Amino acid sequence: MHGVKLFAPASIANISCGFDVLGLCLENIGDIMEIRRSEKAGIHITSIKGQVLPLEANKNVAGVAGLALLEAHNPQLGFEIKIEKKIKPGSGIGSSAASAAGTVAGINYLLGNPFSPSELIPFAMEGERLACGSAHADNVAPALLGGFTLVRDTNPLDVCKLPTPLELAATVIHPKIEVKTSDARAVLKQRVSLEKAIKQWANVGALVSSLYEEDYALLSRALVDEIVEPSRAILIPHFAKIKDACKAAGALGSGISGSGPSVFALSRGMTNANKVAQAMQEVYKDTDIPFEIHVSPIKQSGVSILEILK
Amino acid sequence: MHGVKLFAPASIANISCGFDVLGLCLENIGDIMEIRRSEKAGIHITSIKGQVLPLEANKNVAGVAGLALLEAHNPQLGFEIKIEKKIKPGSGIGSSAASAAGTVAGINYLLGNPFSPSELIPFAMEGERLACGSAHADNVAPALLGGFTLVRDTNPLDVCKLPTPLELAATVIHPKIEVKTSDARAVLKQRVSLEKAIKQWANVGALVSSLYEEDYALLSRALVDEIVEPSRAILIPHFAKIKDACKAAGALGSGISGSGPSVFALSRGMTNANKVAQAMQEVYKDTDIPFEIHVSPIKQSGVSILEILK
Repeated sequence: MHGVKLFAPASIANISCGFDVLGLCLENIGDIMEIRRSEKAGIHITSIKGQVLPLEANKNVAGVAGLALLEAHNPQLGFEIKIEKKIKPGSGIGSSAASAAGTVAGINYLLGNPFSPSELIPFAMEGERLACGSAHADNVAPALLGGFTLVRDTNPLDVCKLPTPLELAATVIHPKIEVKTSDARAVLKQRVSLEKAIKQWANVGALVSSLYEEDYALLSRALVDEIVEPSRAILIPHFAKIKDACKAAGALGSGISGSGPSVFALSRGMTNANKVAQAMQEVYKDTDIPFEIHVSPIKQSGVSILEILK
Repeated sequence: MHGVKLFAPASIANISCGFDVLGLCLENIGDIMEIRRSEKAGIHITSIKGQVLPLEANKNVAGVAGLALLEAHNPQLGFEIKIEKKIKPGSGIGSSAASAAGTVAGINYLLGNPFSPSELIPFAMEGERLACGSAHADNVAPALLGGFTLVRDTNPLDVCKLPTPLELAATVIHPKIEVKTSDARAVLKQRVSLEKAIKQWANVGALVSSLYEEDYALLSRALVDEIVEPSRAILIPHFAKIKDACKAAGALGSGISGSGPSVFALSRGMTNANKVAQAMQEVYKDTDIPFEIHVSPIKQSGVSILEILK
C-alpha cells in the first residue's frame, strides 16, 4: 500500500458545561488529505490548498504530529502529505486538530495500524502544542475516536469515548472575525464560585448520562455553561441573539465552539438542525459580518480512509 | 392493606468528585419502620427505638416528610409510624434521609403507589429541610431510587438514576465523634480555582461513564476530590491514614461520606470490601475514638417492603 486519501473531520470542543473536557466529531466538515510513503525519511508536506500555511514539517501542525509518530515508531520512515484545507484556521472547529489527526491516522493506516486510535492522540496533541501552545486533546480526541469524547486527564492521558445518539446533529455558524486565543484565555476568570462549579459538574454528569440513555430532553437541560460562556460571550458579536434564535428554532442547546468565534447548536435530527441554521442566518444576514453556516450529523468514528492510492 | 414493615436504607452522598450531586444506596445498613393506616388524620409517630428523637410529627423528619406527602395527596388520611433507628443520626450516611424516604415510600405503598419513586423525592426532601436546614436530595434520592443517583438540579428537581455495577461494594467507618454540619459548611471555600473545577467535572463525567461501562479501573481513577475533601479532611481524625490504608487494601477509592464523620471506600466485590474494613480497623483500633464499620453491597433499588402487616 503506497498511499491513502482521507477525510480529517472538524470537531467541536468544550460543549457548554464540558469546558476543557468534552468534544464531538463532525461528519460533513473536514479536510481532505493524501498521504503517501516516501523514500526520504521524515514528513514532507508537498502541497496545501485552500489556505496559506507553512510547508516546513516542523512549523506545520500536520508535520509536527507526523514527526511525533515517526519518532515513536521508526524515524527512518518517510511520508509525503498533501492537504486540502476546508476547515478555516481560527474558526473554532478544530482546524489544527483535523490536520494533526488526519496525518497520524493516515500514517498509522499505511503502517498497518501499529497504534490504536487512542494511542494516536498524544502524537496529534503535539500538533496542537504547535498550533496553540498547549498539547490539549479536546479536538484531537473526537477527530481520532469519533462521536463524543471526554478527556478526563491529559497527564497521563485518559480519554473516554462516549456513545453518541444517532439522531443528534450540529449546526455551526462561523462569524468571520478573529478571536485571538490569548483574548479567549484572558477573559477567563481563574477562580469560580463553588456554587456554579457544582452546577457545572452536575450538568457534565447529566450530559454523559443523557448520551448513554439517548435522553435528548436531559441532554438539552444539561447543555448549560454558567462559568466560561458568560465570560467569553462578549468576544462573539450577537451571541445572545444567536442563542435565543437557536432555542426558538428548537435546538437542544447552543454554545461557543472551542474558544470561538464559531457558535454551535445541537438538535435532534437534521431537519431541526437545518431550521436552526436558518435561524442563525436570520440573526447574521443583516450584520456586516461575513459568515458561514455548517449543518452536520455527529460522526460516529474519527478520521475516515476514503481511498487507497496506488 | 393495613400496614407495611419496611427497610429504609442508609446512603452515601457526595462520593468524591460528585460533591452535592452524587449519591448511592446501601444494602446492609438501614432502619426498620412499620407504617399503618390510622383513623386519625395526620402522621402519628408512636415509637422510636434505638435513638432519642422527637415523636411530634412536625418536629420529626419522618413526620414532616409524611405530612408533605399527605398535603399533596389527601390531608384527611392518617398513618401511624414505628421506627427502629439503626442508622446513627449525625454519622453521615443519611440517617434523616432514611427516615424520610421510608415514610413516604411506605405511605405511598399503602395508598397503591399514586406517586413514582422520583415523585416521592420532594416530600422526603422536606424531611431533610427539617434535619439540616436545606431541602437537599443527595441522600433521599438514592434512598428512594436505589443504586447511584445524580441530582442535576433541585429547583426544579431533576434527578437521574445511574446504573450500578453489580460487584461494587462499600465499606464505611463511622468514627464516633460529632462533626457539626455548620463546621462542615464553614470550612468550605466559596470560590475554587477554575483548574481544579475542570478536573472535578472531568472526573464526574468519567465516573458516570464508568458506571455505564462497568469500568472499575476508570471508576477508580475518577474517585478523586481535590476541592471539598482537602478542606473537610481536617474535621476527621486520621483521615489521610484511612485513605492510605484503603488504597493499600485494594479499594477503588475512598472519601468523606456526606459531610462526615463517616469515611467510605468503594471496592470491587465484597471480599475486597471486607479487606478494606480490616485495614480501616487497623488504623482506628489503637486510637481512643470509638468507631463502627459497615460493609455493604450497593442496593440496586430504594426502600424495600419487607412484610405486609394485617
